[in-house]
Amino acid sequence: MATNVSVENLNPKVLRCEYAVRGEIVIHAQILYCNIGNPQSLGQKPITFFREVLSLCDHPNLLEREEIKSLFSTDAIIRAKKILALIPGRATGAYSHSQGIKGLRDEIAAGIASRDGFPANADDIFLTNGASPGVPYYLDESSGWGLEISELKSQLEDARSKGIVVRALVVINPGNPTGQVLDEQQQYELVKFCKDEELVLLADEVYQENIYVTNKKIISFKKIARSMGYNGEDLPLVSFQSVSKGYYGECGRRGGYMEVAGFSTPVREQLYKIASVNLCSNITGQILAGLIMNPPKGYPMHTGQAGDGCYDLYKEEKDNILKSLCRRAKAMESAFNSIDGITCNKTEGAMYLFPRIYLPQKAIEAARAVNKAPDVFYALRLLDATGIVVTPGSGFGQVEGTWHVRCTILPQEEKIPSMISRFRKFHEEFMAQYRD
Amino acid sequence: MATNVSVENLNPKVLRCEYAVRGEIVIHAQILYCNIGNPQSLGQKPITFFREVLSLCDHPNLLEREEIKSLFSTDAIIRAKKILALIPGRATGAYSHSQGIKGLRDEIAAGIASRDGFPANADDIFLTNGASPGVPYYLDESSGWGLEISELKSQLEDARSKGIVVRALVVINPGNPTGQVLDEQQQYELVKFCKDEELVLLADEVYQENIYVTNKKIISFKKIARSMGYNGEDLPLVSFQSVSKGYYGECGRRGGYMEVAGFSTPVREQLYKIASVNLCSNITGQILAGLIMNPPKGYPMHTGQAGDGCYDLYKEEKDNILKSLCRRAKAMESAFNSIDGITCNKTEGAMYLFPRIYLPQKAIEAARAVNKAPDVFYALRLLDATGIVVTPGSGFGQVEGTWHVRCTILPQEEKIPSMISRFRKFHEEFMAQYRD
Repeated sequence: MATNVSVENLNPKVLRCEYAVRGEIVIHAQILYCNIGNPQSLGQKPITFFREVLSLCDHPNLLEREEIKSLFSTDAIIRAKKILALIPGRATGAYSHSQGIKGLRDEIAAGIASRDGFPANADDIFLTNGASPGVPYYLDESSGWGLEISELKSQLEDARSKGIVVRALVVINPGNPTGQVLDEQQQYELVKFCKDEELVLLADEVYQENIYVTNKKIISFKKIARSMGYNGEDLPLVSFQSVSKGYYGECGRRGGYMEVAGFSTPVREQLYKIASVNLCSNITGQILAGLIMNPPKGYPMHTGQAGDGCYDLYKEEKDNILKSLCRRAKAMESAFNSIDGITCNKTEGAMYLFPRIYLPQKAIEAARAVNKAPDVFYALRLLDATGIVVTPGSGFGQVEGTWHVRCTILPQEEKIPSMISRFRKFHEEFMAQYRD
Repeated sequence: MATNVSVENLNPKVLRCEYAVRGEIVIHAQILYCNIGNPQSLGQKPITFFREVLSLCDHPNLLEREEIKSLFSTDAIIRAKKILALIPGRATGAYSHSQGIKGLRDEIAAGIASRDGFPANADDIFLTNGASPGVPYYLDESSGWGLEISELKSQLEDARSKGIVVRALVVINPGNPTGQVLDEQQQYELVKFCKDEELVLLADEVYQENIYVTNKKIISFKKIARSMGYNGEDLPLVSFQSVSKGYYGECGRRGGYMEVAGFSTPVREQLYKIASVNLCSNITGQILAGLIMNPPKGYPMHTGQAGDGCYDLYKEEKDNILKSLCRRAKAMESAFNSIDGITCNKTEGAMYLFPRIYLPQKAIEAARAVNKAPDVFYALRLLDATGIVVTPGSGFGQVEGTWHVRCTILPQEEKIPSMISRFRKFHEEFMAQYRD
């Protein structure tokens, strides 16, 4: 046994680190993973066009071969050539600029500008290995804050009165774990609040393609800020995007970016320095980030004529995934609401349901007796009984005295009825055992 | 201007962070990058077999098509199928296990076992986005330590007498920036030293394929430790490997692993937890890490008959790259040694030369006058005059009062003569200007 390295002498920050979605629950886990937004692990297929382009960029010699015309869509071939031309020396195996390949950042900036109707600058884009590593959350988080500005304001004043320097507000829209989509008015108020209170607005917008209601739309916080006349200089804002979510769900490719606007040059230089330490994010993820922000836009893409079929296939795959997610969200929401002792909010966007579990006092005491939070206790019992893995709500700062689990809407549709019936059976037995 | 985020109120750790190879020099940089080991940016081609496999894994539908037989080698097709079978659900777009795909870790462990002749365990492998993010260097480094054990010992005692808790020794073999390859006896002594002093041995072995002398060989520290009869439990050891170096040079793919041996279960669980926070490393990098540890091993690979040509091509590409690196190392070393006021050690391995520059006192004073370290001043002047980017030695803890630059051996061979003549001309003019 190594006597010099033990849990006792590890950096205490390592021991304190907790990550709700991959903690104790997962170490026991088998079977149906509803704890994490990982669509392709549950059978979602990647978008063909994106994978065609990656495949060609990985092995550029293919582009010189006539035979590829029968294997790849013409648009994918054109796009791969275009991307390779953006990469210095066509070297997809070289470290890139620390912020990511300049040509891809240009593409992404163009995609953002087209989404928002306001300009975006490639120098503001930092490509990342997914959205997780972008900003380590040294910054103060908004956990437990409601959506009423008055409530936010009172939380902020409370923190400040305790001597806490609050520097930033993190807003996840659409929400994780709650699945809510902010309405435009709320977004205006949040931006105004950050401006007035001199807070950096950290906008986690990785679910910007995931919306399941028709009466709302997803608007980027940058667009909101620009619409209000705030230019970069008066509202520091960071927007996060990832290739892991949306209809693409390319979690394993670890691609994403942050758009950093409204910071002074010296602060930007510090950000650049930190980005440099890890050299650059992976090139496959960089290419994918460029693709999701500039997907096929409709035929004719290259010939001026319809009929290549690439756009049709892309559109069909995308629509099928999003429509299916929408059906799954509704099916699971109404199923949860049909179970006694569970209520479930409507999922307007993102990939999660956050059902509230009304635990009897005896269950809470049983959990305490084994030194577990009640929702962790419930989730572990659920796992043991059914093989369904969910994430306990206590990792997300739920309101004191309430208990939730986070459950993704990602199980394939044909598996949902049996999943729900196993869940229901477990829940009824659990409640019967601990009835007050 | 954002008044709430300024350099003054950033986390001081961010401001203190310095990264030698991507600092001030690079912000001015153009032209010939000899500052960083980035082979493909200077024209090195990727290994065809590896890229064939990646291309097929990115777009697995190709494997169902007859036409691929004329585009991909049979061995690449077989290997891609084998890799996809290792990935749960063949989902190359899903988050994997936090340590990396189990089947790929099995492959890597088998590759290590075959390299060392001692067993390796997939549970000890943590796949990473390159080798840089594996362990943030919170640990004490061995900077400036020589190779004499007596010197190491006195440095250690000196540190301990100051109350510094020294937990680990970092050894880079082959060396960066010095290009030295340790001999076997030195390795035994280092392992014994770590064992006796209860230090964790962090072995940066990313250059394990890069050796340019015939009288030495590269032996992993794990093999050394096992040969000495130390099993995992009595010598905690971490070995780092990366897809960025060797003959493959796939820097942009951000693949690598660390093999973690000899830590207690609770410490391993903490490592696992930290790995989980970033979810997983990118799948392309994971696949590549599996490939470099299990490259084609000789024909017949699949048919039992020679003649497929895949192994021949692989072997030819690999040998050409390594032989060329060897020629470049020798050519640049003798060129540096032919310049007055420069001496250059022999590069036995890795990718760098570390020539010592004998700066005149007047140059040192001129540097101090503009508040620069003398080698930074020299490197900036070199860059201005020639477009050649090197890394100042002061980032690597050189001996007090000596000045070096680190220069990669990666410029393409045909560019070396003109590079050296530009370097020589600059150096002579610089020395003439500052002659004491």
